[in-house]
Amino acid sequence: MVEQRITAEQSGAFIEMAAVAPTASGPLDGLTFAVKDIIDVAGHKTGCGNPRWRATHPPAVAHAVCVEQVLNAGGRCLGKTHTDELAFSLLGENHHYGTPLNPKAPERVPGGSSCGSVSAVACGLVDFAIGSDTGGSVRVPASNCGILGYRPSHGAISVGGVMPFAPGFDTIGLFARKAGVLARAAAVVLAQDLPVTVEVGTVYLVKEAVALADPEVQAALTPALRRLENALGKNVVPLSIREMDGEPDDGTLAMRNWHETFCLVQWSEIWSSLGAWVTEARPDFGPATAANFELTRNLDRRRMPAAARRREAYCRGVASRLAANDLLIIPTAPTPAPHKGSKHQRDGDAASYYPRALALTALAGIGRLPQISLPLLQADSAPVGMSLLASRGQDAFLLAVVNALAENGMVQDQGVQ
Amino acid sequence: MVEQRITAEQSGAFIEMAAVAPTASGPLDGLTFAVKDIIDVAGHKTGCGNPRWRATHPPAVAHAVCVEQVLNAGGRCLGKTHTDELAFSLLGENHHYGTPLNPKAPERVPGGSSCGSVSAVACGLVDFAIGSDTGGSVRVPASNCGILGYRPSHGAISVGGVMPFAPGFDTIGLFARKAGVLARAAAVVLAQDLPVTVEVGTVYLVKEAVALADPEVQAALTPALRRLENALGKNVVPLSIREMDGEPDDGTLAMRNWHETFCLVQWSEIWSSLGAWVTEARPDFGPATAANFELTRNLDRRRMPAAARRREAYCRGVASRLAANDLLIIPTAPTPAPHKGSKHQRDGDAASYYPRALALTALAGIGRLPQISLPLLQADSAPVGMSLLASRGQDAFLLAVVNALAENGMVQDQGVQ
Repeated sequence: MVEQRITAEQSGAFIEMAAVAPTASGPLDGLTFAVKDIIDVAGHKTGCGNPRWRATHPPAVAHAVCVEQVLNAGGRCLGKTHTDELAFSLLGENHHYGTPLNPKAPERVPGGSSCGSVSAVACGLVDFAIGSDTGGSVRVPASNCGILGYRPSHGAISVGGVMPFAPGFDTIGLFARKAGVLARAAAVVLAQDLPVTVEVGTVYLVKEAVALADPEVQAALTPALRRLENALGKNVVPLSIREMDGEPDDGTLAMRNWHETFCLVQWSEIWSSLGAWVTEARPDFGPATAANFELTRNLDRRRMPAAARRREAYCRGVASRLAANDLLIIPTAPTPAPHKGSKHQRDGDAASYYPRALALTALAGIGRLPQISLPLLQADSAPVGMSLLASRGQDAFLLAVVNALAENGMVQDQGVQ
Repeated sequence: MVEQRITAEQSGAFIEMAAVAPTASGPLDGLTFAVKDIIDVAGHKTGCGNPRWRATHPPAVAHAVCVEQVLNAGGRCLGKTHTDELAFSLLGENHHYGTPLNPKAPERVPGGSSCGSVSAVACGLVDFAIGSDTGGSVRVPASNCGILGYRPSHGAISVGGVMPFAPGFDTIGLFARKAGVLARAAAVVLAQDLPVTVEVGTVYLVKEAVALADPEVQAALTPALRRLENALGKNVVPLSIREMDGEPDDGTLAMRNWHETFCLVQWSEIWSSLGAWVTEARPDFGPATAANFELTRNLDRRRMPAAARRREAYCRGVASRLAANDLLIIPTAPTPAPHKGSKHQRDGDAASYYPRALALTALAGIGRLPQISLPLLQADSAPVGMSLLASRGQDAFLLAVVNALAENGMVQDQGVQ
């Protein structure tokens, strides 16, 4: 692969170059990283993708916990990266600050909300980047840009110093081009060592998740699954989502119930976290962000308690189905990245982009599971991720599995574009 | 017991009477509750115990998720209750708003930071109250006031609409005088049903936790443990904390490492959550709160990453030691409630109040475990709690155990004082 270096300016990934030296030597010596601009870097404003937020908030007085951990392990921060406004999008097209480059599919969006972090890594400007993932904001951009993206088990990585969005789902995640770098950085923010060897249990393919994907994505999955079976030395076992959520086996339901359950709880939490500021500060949102916040503002919150009960029931269902060393496989996203400037509504019909994408990402969200998106698929000449998920708390195991897959060639280092 | 009704005014529990009718009929029909003033009730300011916070923040636009759940289950809200300033104390003596009444020991503090919620319940003004517990702010007040207090597994109850403090430890907890009321309210905010019958595994007594308590508390534990053994039909098994944290068995270490580990991570997160506001708004803190925030401001944050690694190692150690239906027993607090107006410093020597209290509460905090404090002990003519802890995620089991203990007379309903 011919390496054409993209400049930071060409990528449009950074809102601010903010160099911060490591505070100690450690396992991340020599690596550079970038930080999504909903995460604090001391002395800098945390702008959260909106000019009015930036204007109405003071600078951060301390590094977020995750940033402090990375600096203390030898990482060198290069800057703050763009985010969708208040992290509320999967697209990465910021009305105020533009759309960072997806270098493998420049006519397509990078994905959001961690759009600058994914672009900085995919463009080769940093070795890894810190993003956040509430409803897919690390996993979907990683899928779109053809790199690795990791969402941890809920609660496993500190969100201290991170803008609260929907705290029942908020996580700090990571992007990298290489499995080894992802594993090293993840071990630091997880505050634990990874196992050297792993033994994988049963590997399940979630049938309804596959059915949600475009035919081209489904077609690309087949050979990737065969390679995975060879790499792991075991067959992939089909599993119905109905065996985890306990819903009636109704062919038309697919994973709509996961999408709806996730949205009702998430939207309630988002409005609780941000509604008072939105109401008081009257920020100049772009049209898509304004529409998103109207959904949260107008939600009949009396529907939320029943959704929270479904969330917990599904979460227990997943936990009871998965042993500690089992894996789930799904396509990370239903399609390659949407084309720039195309319209996508969160409350669109079930066949449209958001309901399908959020149904897929809701599996880890509702289940509180760790998930890693791997750049293994191509559809319509653009990247799509295939994801491995593990049981809640099995982050170190999952990262070690991906490391092992990289060592035997199943997951390849992604070049600098 | 002669019931002498205490008025809301006498209790000093409420910062604002804010009646909110139920939004539906459900399992909490007929029950009244109160809400700690770091938790949103729509249309009311969330004052967080500090006048400057109240002045610089808009009213809440929505009920917090937990409040919405309770209203939707039939609960009737009577008002917002006092909290220590920004929830940063275990004492309950608010410099600006005063000290709510501890009706069982009026010369002693109620405990904090959920001081108004515990007082409202202990004084019989509401059936239950919602508090928050990061470092003991439900468990310690419950111990002090002789009622039941429940801290959930971390992440099990939504903190949407709650002031972020130290998100790696923040939880929403509950107070009640009766185990049955606690169980019904907890099931609503946990969004799950409780089991009807339970089978208890091994019941461990944490030796070092007992050793941290005053001799009078230790003496009171002995008959309470005997009654518990009779009620459960099994012997309590001594367990060393060293078998969970893996530290060398050094007689002088006791649980100081739990206290230190907890404080380093918690203080880092607190300053990340609140430092920018404190720095910009220059609030008029009382002396104890000002001293607490100076500790977080002046912390050498480079010490935090190693503490976070210890936190995760201890958490895994606890998880690997406890089966799903095992219980741990500790005294909730090392002493009865301190006397009002006495001085207690967070960075005092190891024998002083805070280091001992926080070492005890750090077990559930670091382990992410559920804990229920039961009003089973008396020392120096004042209440002290005995706590049951269970494995992470075993909240429903733990609540059902306490329900069963109440049904056979081990845990008695606490009268209205």
